[in-house]
Amino acid sequence: MARVFNFSPGPSALPQAVLEKAASELVEYGASGQSVMEMSHRSKVYDNIIVQCEAMLREVMGIPDHYKVMFLQGGASLQFAMVPMNLMKTGKADYIVTGQFSGKAYDEAKKYGDVNLAATTKPETFSRIPSQEELQLRPDADYVHICFNNTIFGTKYFYYPDTGDVPLVADLSSCILSEPIDVSKFGLIYAGAQKNMAPAGLTVVIAREDLLRKDLPAYVPTMCNYAIMAENSSMYNTPPCYAIYVCKLVLEWVKSMGGLTAMQAHNQKKAAVLYDYLDQSKLFSNPVSKESRSMMNVTFRAESDEINDRFVKETSAAGMANLKGHRSVGGMRASIYNAMPIEGVEKVVAFMKQFEG
Amino acid sequence: MARVFNFSPGPSALPQAVLEKAASELVEYGASGQSVMEMSHRSKVYDNIIVQCEAMLREVMGIPDHYKVMFLQGGASLQFAMVPMNLMKTGKADYIVTGQFSGKAYDEAKKYGDVNLAATTKPETFSRIPSQEELQLRPDADYVHICFNNTIFGTKYFYYPDTGDVPLVADLSSCILSEPIDVSKFGLIYAGAQKNMAPAGLTVVIAREDLLRKDLPAYVPTMCNYAIMAENSSMYNTPPCYAIYVCKLVLEWVKSMGGLTAMQAHNQKKAAVLYDYLDQSKLFSNPVSKESRSMMNVTFRAESDEINDRFVKETSAAGMANLKGHRSVGGMRASIYNAMPIEGVEKVVAFMKQFEG
Repeated sequence: MARVFNFSPGPSALPQAVLEKAASELVEYGASGQSVMEMSHRSKVYDNIIVQCEAMLREVMGIPDHYKVMFLQGGASLQFAMVPMNLMKTGKADYIVTGQFSGKAYDEAKKYGDVNLAATTKPETFSRIPSQEELQLRPDADYVHICFNNTIFGTKYFYYPDTGDVPLVADLSSCILSEPIDVSKFGLIYAGAQKNMAPAGLTVVIAREDLLRKDLPAYVPTMCNYAIMAENSSMYNTPPCYAIYVCKLVLEWVKSMGGLTAMQAHNQKKAAVLYDYLDQSKLFSNPVSKESRSMMNVTFRAESDEINDRFVKETSAAGMANLKGHRSVGGMRASIYNAMPIEGVEKVVAFMKQFEG
Repeated sequence: MARVFNFSPGPSALPQAVLEKAASELVEYGASGQSVMEMSHRSKVYDNIIVQCEAMLREVMGIPDHYKVMFLQGGASLQFAMVPMNLMKTGKADYIVTGQFSGKAYDEAKKYGDVNLAATTKPETFSRIPSQEELQLRPDADYVHICFNNTIFGTKYFYYPDTGDVPLVADLSSCILSEPIDVSKFGLIYAGAQKNMAPAGLTVVIAREDLLRKDLPAYVPTMCNYAIMAENSSMYNTPPCYAIYVCKLVLEWVKSMGGLTAMQAHNQKKAAVLYDYLDQSKLFSNPVSKESRSMMNVTFRAESDEINDRFVKETSAAGMANLKGHRSVGGMRASIYNAMPIEGVEKVVAFMKQFEG
């Protein structure tokens, strides 16, 4: 069977060239006589891989030198706890809730201090991102937390919230590497890698050095202490070596495609194909405000659940996998991360046209 | 270049048949049209993989039904905190320290309660495992923690400590799947998978159901709550999907080789080849008491560091990688997990003979 177009929200499609390269050197990596999966994480041959991965990430994203890069585990969900455990100094933080994951981050943070809901679009079913004017920020908060792209509701920020001197912390799981971002606007960025970077099991954290401190409350597990992780270059214990290797291959691919500016153009074009069709369709619609539309996750639905179910079933049979929307919202969702070629999006739109008749 | 014999203590050699199978289906898994790395963890095709992995682990290890199996992240190092955070009810635990990792587990546990050093062989450079008679156990402890095989010092338990009604918790990172064990002797078992099960990035936890409770201190991250992880069948968030898939392939390989009884015979035979040579060698010696010798990690050394360095360099050039001992103890170490064929061990001994002259 041929490879399908995979619209899964995460884990997600990886570039075919990356998969083919990984397959070709899975049993023996270069002249090492070993699989990358078998390498001691402290060997020279592996060290070269993780060092190159970090260097490539710094280059591709333009990460300033005073930011540390960490390759961790546990997904964004563990970050929901690590962020407050590490960054709450006075015990106050502001959270902007724009979907399910930022809501989970907010709930988890409440376990560690005084957490303020600075804004939410929940009453509007998370169909847009709040504007700067709507944010009720506290100048004495330890940080402000946002989710930059909302995988389930298909929205994204098109501005960097101005938080003054308060560090901005962002979950970039579903949009990292999709477009250029100004890292210097953030105190800390984290991303589960399984959408745009690597297979599941790797979490990338990029943190401004001055925010890291070793001296945390006694209850914080050593493995949850950013300063210790950074000081040990992600080698306090064995990192998720193979996922880091695939991440390096993905970064090489991104670079070869022209970097994040080219990725952005590629992603804008793909998203436009879908949104343009949806905006004139009589059967399908997208519920998101135009100024908040995600480039990575395009949600759409017909009025009737029966039609939605039939659409998902028929597209799946036609080689377009995982177009079903999240169970909490229903309908459809096309997750079109970097690795999705424009042909995949065109195929969905062609199918929609035919389906609509 | 041909594949080397890889004596790395972890990450470690995987069976070549497993690597070849993984390589052959890396780009497309069966008729799915996707790589396992790209699959939604909630898809039927992936669910089948994780369910089979657990079923296979239960079968191979003989795990009783009243034990939960969890596929987590963060390595044994995160377990050093998760065990006390989850199992300390009264706040008392007993630790037996027989090496570096059990020492780290002991230090981490002190952050969470009253931790008693029930026994240690540190004054004897961890060259043996204490006997039952030496254990100073408290009948009212919440659990007793041991490390069943010590990777760095090359020792292992040849008995199950009798802890009465107090649950026995064991780090099995470097010996899981190496021989049959009686799971019912333990309250909880954990293992970083990167030695005998899978690539790095997966931690397997096997816990007696009645020990798990959701209601933990507020500071415990949701991701560190065993009850929540078990209730969600390791799918509270995205698990390390690809490492779980490779773990399933390894378990299929173990089963095809005859299961844990056959693995034990295979491992005993390999270890005997090394220990028998070391016991009569005039140049090399093994510092471990005979009744505590590990089957998985065989340490040895010559008197002179210069000779040790030369031995490591020459074996490496001859296709025997990673024989250098841990930096904290020096000398040499042959980690000979399940995937190491007897030919690898015989090659080392042949080299030692020639080297000794």
